Amino acid sequence: MQAVRAHLIHSPERGRIERIEDALVSFDAAGQIVRVADGNSAPANIDLRSQGVLLPGLVDLHIHAPQFPQLGTGLDVPLEDWLSKYTFPLEARFADLTYAAFVHDALVRRLLANGTTTAVYFATIHGPSSLNLAETCLRLGQRAFVGKVAMDLAGACPDYYRDSDAAASINETADFIKAVRAMPGNDLVEPIITPRFIPSCSDDALAGLGELAASTGAAVQTHCSESDWEHGFVLNRMGKTDASALDEFGLLTRRSVLAHAGHITDADMDLIAERGAGIAHCPLSNAYFGNAVFPLRRALAKALHIGLGTDISGGHSAFLLDNARASVTASRMLEEGVDPSKDAANRGVDASRIDFRDAFYMATKGGAEVLDLPVGAFKAGLQMDAILVNLVDDFGPVEDLLQKIIMRATPAEITQTWVAGKCVSAPMVHPDQSV
Amino acid sequence: MQAVRAHLIHSPERGRIERIEDALVSFDAAGQIVRVADGNSAPANIDLRSQGVLLPGLVDLHIHAPQFPQLGTGLDVPLEDWLSKYTFPLEARFADLTYAAFVHDALVRRLLANGTTTAVYFATIHGPSSLNLAETCLRLGQRAFVGKVAMDLAGACPDYYRDSDAAASINETADFIKAVRAMPGNDLVEPIITPRFIPSCSDDALAGLGELAASTGAAVQTHCSESDWEHGFVLNRMGKTDASALDEFGLLTRRSVLAHAGHITDADMDLIAERGAGIAHCPLSNAYFGNAVFPLRRALAKALHIGLGTDISGGHSAFLLDNARASVTASRMLEEGVDPSKDAANRGVDASRIDFRDAFYMATKGGAEVLDLPVGAFKAGLQMDAILVNLVDDFGPVEDLLQKIIMRATPAEITQTWVAGKCVSAPMVHPDQSV
Ligand SMILES: [Zn+2]
Ligand SMILES: [Zn+2]
Repeated sequence: MQAVRAHLIHSPERGRIERIEDALVSFDAAGQIVRVADGNSAPANIDLRSQGVLLPGLVDLHIHAPQFPQLGTGLDVPLEDWLSKYTFPLEARFADLTYAAFVHDALVRRLLANGTTTAVYFATIHGPSSLNLAETCLRLGQRAFVGKVAMDLAGACPDYYRDSDAAASINETADFIKAVRAMPGNDLVEPIITPRFIPSCSDDALAGLGELAASTGAAVQTHCSESDWEHGFVLNRMGKTDASALDEFGLLTRRSVLAHAGHITDADMDLIAERGAGIAHCPLSNAYFGNAVFPLRRALAKALHIGLGTDISGGHSAFLLDNARASVTASRMLEEGVDPSKDAANRGVDASRIDFRDAFYMATKGGAEVLDLPVGAFKAGLQMDAILVNLVDDFGPVEDLLQKIIMRATPAEITQTWVAGKCVSAPMVHPDQSV
Repeated sequence: MQAVRAHLIHSPERGRIERIEDALVSFDAAGQIVRVADGNSAPANIDLRSQGVLLPGLVDLHIHAPQFPQLGTGLDVPLEDWLSKYTFPLEARFADLTYAAFVHDALVRRLLANGTTTAVYFATIHGPSSLNLAETCLRLGQRAFVGKVAMDLAGACPDYYRDSDAAASINETADFIKAVRAMPGNDLVEPIITPRFIPSCSDDALAGLGELAASTGAAVQTHCSESDWEHGFVLNRMGKTDASALDEFGLLTRRSVLAHAGHITDADMDLIAERGAGIAHCPLSNAYFGNAVFPLRRALAKALHIGLGTDISGGHSAFLLDNARASVTASRMLEEGVDPSKDAANRGVDASRIDFRDAFYMATKGGAEVLDLPVGAFKAGLQMDAILVNLVDDFGPVEDLLQKIIMRATPAEITQTWVAGKCVSAPMVHPDQSV
């Protein structure tokens, strides 16, 4: 049993922020929190009170691991060029396991330093590189879902980068699920079934992956109604929306993560809510590739499970809080509208704004709910996943601290990252912080 | 004479990015660049080639110094509450010179660490606190324009925080101009005439400040057509737009900085171009208080002088590059539109997008053009204002480096800041950078 003494802030439910001054968080060898009590109720192994505030670890629901090398680039070109000129050739390089291992190590370290305690990854179509990513997460101590990407549709995928056929998509995914589950000492990393998106997969592959979800109980991730093009393409091919089609293939489950979902209909929202599936909202990426703003507040009002994603590298930041604040900003821009030449009354969509409280919830407990994982708050029974935030700030009041952290903390101000009760990243405090 | 050897990237004109591998920048004791030559053409005092890339220093055209303590907060409330509950009471505290000096020191140090080599500040209505800000910039080595805020209109301003009358606005501004110009050894800080915005100033004050601009040659700053409310208020009171009214008061000059300008008309743009005045584009702030996106690309096409501003604390970041990338993101959202329930064809405004190249130009040379200052690029005759950027990145190609810096560099990756040929901020490299 260990115990950490610290000031805590968390959001155990949407709309409720709790600040606990001087708490003692006790957890067992498996990282499970046993008790949250007064700071002086028992001896502590570590006292963090003078070093900032402890928040639940950040949950990043949407990351393309192989795209990390191009983070921040290619955003000046159209989506087709972005995919064909940059992204697919880069992902194809992960056939080289040495290169893959190099990138994975750098990425997972960076994300841990940035406070991401749970990460949901698209790997590549290659079994070995995908497994290397799972091994890297386990070795470095990051809680993760890792998916071998399934994409088999000739014509829709480049010949140099696709599964040979539907059977390959299904069988290689099945093998990958077994391999991840068989990793020695694995209590952190789960496999996740990962059809890239409907346009790149055959009906047979989608149906087979749906059956695999049912037979293995594995989680599922894919892109859903991301852009005008993608949403329209699926309507055309399937005669229905992404969400309905995924549902018919058995891919819309309590543990499905739908990336983006900017163009889902009200009926889609109801269906997603009914299935208990979740959404990875990626506001920065959507500004470049989504053609519109995800109607977040409407979806929250329908009680959908929603968390946040960086969408490395469709989004340009590897820091989830950049997307937390962008979710607030984008919601304001949806509410206000963007075109000043229009009348204010016809410019935006009323009642769309959220604030930092919802952003904080989505970045922590909301993301955990999407994944049905016992993380995201400080409560007995949950895992001790946490970040220590040492915000450079000389000014009170303390009630503003959470808003300041959500709206402006930088990666250098995340000074410790804890997963399953272990401190897995602790860059030294930046000297600037002594200012 | 000193010489710095480094790799350089700059944008001496809009649309042109120049990368110079291994250059030698020689400058005199006054910080003026004398020559940019080959790296091995003469001995160097300092060789920065192994420590990253040197860019021109960042020019932040719009900062409310006294609002720094609330940076990142209050964004969940409407503008009226933000002003009356938070902002005016906070600014009023700067009557206390001890408090003012404490905040100013922290702010200027932070901005220098973040790479802001030229800063344009609104101070407060108080002469002494405004002068303290100018002194702080000079002492810490930041190039700056500092303005004592003029706001005299009873009813429009709180009684506890306004100039007593128009004469006070004018005379205290005149005194402040003299005091800043008389600071011993001052070669860095200029006074700037600062009517807060038309709604808070009487006609007499505006006219007097315009005369002061003519008689002193001082620069001018104010808010212009920031929001629906503000733009409409001026139309109502003046029977014309902010830009025309400012022009009639003599406040639209070659050295005027208009913050926001989101709602200016095409005729306003033409007038602003004719006068050679400039715009401080503050995309993050606009998402909260602007009601729309500034039509940046249209204004750039009209060859207006445009730079970027953080608008501390209407914007939530003290890092200008956060606004550089937000200017790209906002331009995409203006082009695409935000409401997914609308047809794509009726959602956004065609041909609105800019990319990182324009953002880089605005953050450096574009801002310099607004101020008519000899900074913003590496060229003989300009001042040696620069930042060393040590991006954590293990992946080529080098052609992508600038885009990566603009879209994702964090403050900790700005490792040196130079103003007028002196290194004025050099936080140690963050340990994370060795990853
Ligand atoms: Zn994606
Ligand atoms: Zn302002």
